[in-house]
Amino acid sequence: MPYRHDIDGCLAGTIGEHGLAESELDATLAAAAPALDDLHRWHDDGSLPVLRLPARRDDLGELEAVAAGLRGRCDHVLVLGTGGSSLGGQTLYALVDRGFGPPAGTPHLVFLDNVDPDTFAALDAAVDWGRTGVIVISKSGTTAETLTQFLTLVPPLIAAGGEAALKERVVAITEPGPRALRQMAERWALPVLDHDPLVGGRFSVLSLVGLLPALVAGLDAAAVRAGAGEVLDATLHASDPCDSAPALGAAVSIGLARQRGAGTTVLLPYVDRLGFFGLWYRQLWAESLGKDGHGTTPVRAMGTVDQHSQLQLYLAGPRDKMFTVLMSAAAGTGDTVPPDLAGDPALGGKLDYLAGRTMGDLLDAEQRATADTLIRNQRPTRVMAVERVDEATLGALMMHFMLETIVAARILGVDAFDQPAVEEGKVLARQYLDEMAS
Amino acid sequence: MPYRHDIDGCLAGTIGEHGLAESELDATLAAAAPALDDLHRWHDDGSLPVLRLPARRDDLGELEAVAAGLRGRCDHVLVLGTGGSSLGGQTLYALVDRGFGPPAGTPHLVFLDNVDPDTFAALDAAVDWGRTGVIVISKSGTTAETLTQFLTLVPPLIAAGGEAALKERVVAITEPGPRALRQMAERWALPVLDHDPLVGGRFSVLSLVGLLPALVAGLDAAAVRAGAGEVLDATLHASDPCDSAPALGAAVSIGLARQRGAGTTVLLPYVDRLGFFGLWYRQLWAESLGKDGHGTTPVRAMGTVDQHSQLQLYLAGPRDKMFTVLMSAAAGTGDTVPPDLAGDPALGGKLDYLAGRTMGDLLDAEQRATADTLIRNQRPTRVMAVERVDEATLGALMMHFMLETIVAARILGVDAFDQPAVEEGKVLARQYLDEMAS
Repeated sequence: MPYRHDIDGCLAGTIGEHGLAESELDATLAAAAPALDDLHRWHDDGSLPVLRLPARRDDLGELEAVAAGLRGRCDHVLVLGTGGSSLGGQTLYALVDRGFGPPAGTPHLVFLDNVDPDTFAALDAAVDWGRTGVIVISKSGTTAETLTQFLTLVPPLIAAGGEAALKERVVAITEPGPRALRQMAERWALPVLDHDPLVGGRFSVLSLVGLLPALVAGLDAAAVRAGAGEVLDATLHASDPCDSAPALGAAVSIGLARQRGAGTTVLLPYVDRLGFFGLWYRQLWAESLGKDGHGTTPVRAMGTVDQHSQLQLYLAGPRDKMFTVLMSAAAGTGDTVPPDLAGDPALGGKLDYLAGRTMGDLLDAEQRATADTLIRNQRPTRVMAVERVDEATLGALMMHFMLETIVAARILGVDAFDQPAVEEGKVLARQYLDEMAS
Repeated sequence: MPYRHDIDGCLAGTIGEHGLAESELDATLAAAAPALDDLHRWHDDGSLPVLRLPARRDDLGELEAVAAGLRGRCDHVLVLGTGGSSLGGQTLYALVDRGFGPPAGTPHLVFLDNVDPDTFAALDAAVDWGRTGVIVISKSGTTAETLTQFLTLVPPLIAAGGEAALKERVVAITEPGPRALRQMAERWALPVLDHDPLVGGRFSVLSLVGLLPALVAGLDAAAVRAGAGEVLDATLHASDPCDSAPALGAAVSIGLARQRGAGTTVLLPYVDRLGFFGLWYRQLWAESLGKDGHGTTPVRAMGTVDQHSQLQLYLAGPRDKMFTVLMSAAAGTGDTVPPDLAGDPALGGKLDYLAGRTMGDLLDAEQRATADTLIRNQRPTRVMAVERVDEATLGALMMHFMLETIVAARILGVDAFDQPAVEEGKVLARQYLDEMAS
């Protein structure tokens, strides 16, 4: 498996009364069994396409051709979309851009998931519209934010290169049928790629929604799917499916929420490339489970900065949380702290312990120390560990959490795939817009 | 006041049984009164310097001189530090950089708050070390992450410009006394600025810790302090101090936590420039209150993206949260959705409601719709609204939340200014490092 999954720190055997007893875990796992039957059935009959995506390669050639066109013509590629149309792509793109731009020769992807006029004004000053591409993603084809973004960007794009350039540098992704986005795209004969209606936004990262931006950034989309496939296969073919990591993770999470009041679940990765992963996970977990009064609140933390921000609360605040520390192998990597500097006699030995250690040594020590400290303080803590952070590991972690979420929904008795509550706000926003117009 | 503060959506009069009754609010406010006495005393005797910082201007000349030196010599300025040494500066810097770089002519500030070797390798490829400056911030002068960052960056800096260049482009901030960082700085005769020992990291944004990076980015540091001062004065001079916004905010938060089980507090800003503000607030609130089993969990959300990620959970999940929607005036600003495009007859009227509206109209409608939808669903919701987002408003909001946090700590009976629980993890990390060395 591409990751290690260790739930011992969530169990009473390790952390005492604040952990889950074996009997409680077993009872919750039993409730998970029907979910694993569902997964088998949905996989075999194709009714849940996200389970078929890991094995697909047939669509990647066309996607790479589109991506190569954008790569060649663009210095910036704006990815317009919000929620599930954005977070998966951002998570993969974080493999190449740590916040200060991608490597030379790679287009700078800018994910625009808000409708902030100030940001768009800054963007206007920052990009060359003659070398800027757009990927506009809306599953329904009517998302107000995304269509507003797109429609306000059409004039500068046309001004810089005419309608022909628009056609060469804009790609739309939406469902088949007479969707507004598709109908708009037809006006300029823009290429439109199909969003599978059966792949919900928060489960779409393995589809073109996540993989087209990844390919533009030069990432290996097949490796993302291969990593996801490894986890899916291991889950579907486990001799006792309840022993699979996603089922165990779901049972621990829901068990701790029900039996120990852990209404918050903190995901704490340690490397910067996994920083966005926490935001992607946050939507997946919250929107899939948060209904009928159920669900737990996902919190995205980040080592090492949150040791200096949130750890005090985590260790000494209310016992209402579980933690997932997402470690990656780091010892021995990175630059060495120069021994002559850290060991300078003028420092009186204060920094001797850093002399000759690498930056990765420190990261490694800190992630282990945080997990161990949480466990010593009887705070329920799961450890997930990867040897490297790349396309395959990200694909594996994403499939893990998609399966864990689906299993958790079944244990809770909610529909993992809908989001009925958000409609009211959309209707109200439209009403307020209408009032401004009148 | 530079912001509007409306707690009606948290009260039983508006949202029924899930809100706080007037009598409960009054009882909690009564417990806040001693905190307001404390603030008066600490302000008058100078024992809490953060309350004196808003009125200070005498230190800004020296800071601007240092900032101007860095601005002139550097294309990139790396800000090394973590937790309170980083989040305030990042929050202010977000006024000029929305994630794709600052305006032309302004140095690109890169805040490094992790010890991730991969990020530092990417940095090495991205910057010209002959045009890169460093601000290294550690209050104690011994923060392992910050000193490791700094010590591993010394060799490339020296390689690019010799020790003389180091002296011209590196500034250290630490407490007076024989601190390791200060002693190291003396080796190369680097400028060292004093971190006030009585200003804790999470309360340091109005000191040089937050303002030096802001000045390097060309921001108006005096305006930050002036905005903070307006809120401080209004609180100290309120006819009934318990009616001041920070006291009301603290009483509502703690009241809802105690009486209605709202163990999570969600801060939901809508403009990108306030995105980092949520991370700064998160440390302030969590680390100040999270002790002795007390504290509530701060969650940083972001409109509009979290409407498509977290709102389902917020509206239909467990009733364990309160919300602060941080609005800013946006109607009428930004580009207009071209009427000929949105009103294209081919779209069958689907987008007519967007035609002629500005992007800011949509943002405005969405932030109001989200707040109103939360309230209609009887979810306790406070609204804070600003007319603009600039240095003065940020200073005002920061002072509001610092005061609210200090008052909340007094109601809970915890010390707002310590963080005793994090020591254990530091000791353990050092032990693991020692084991690697042996």
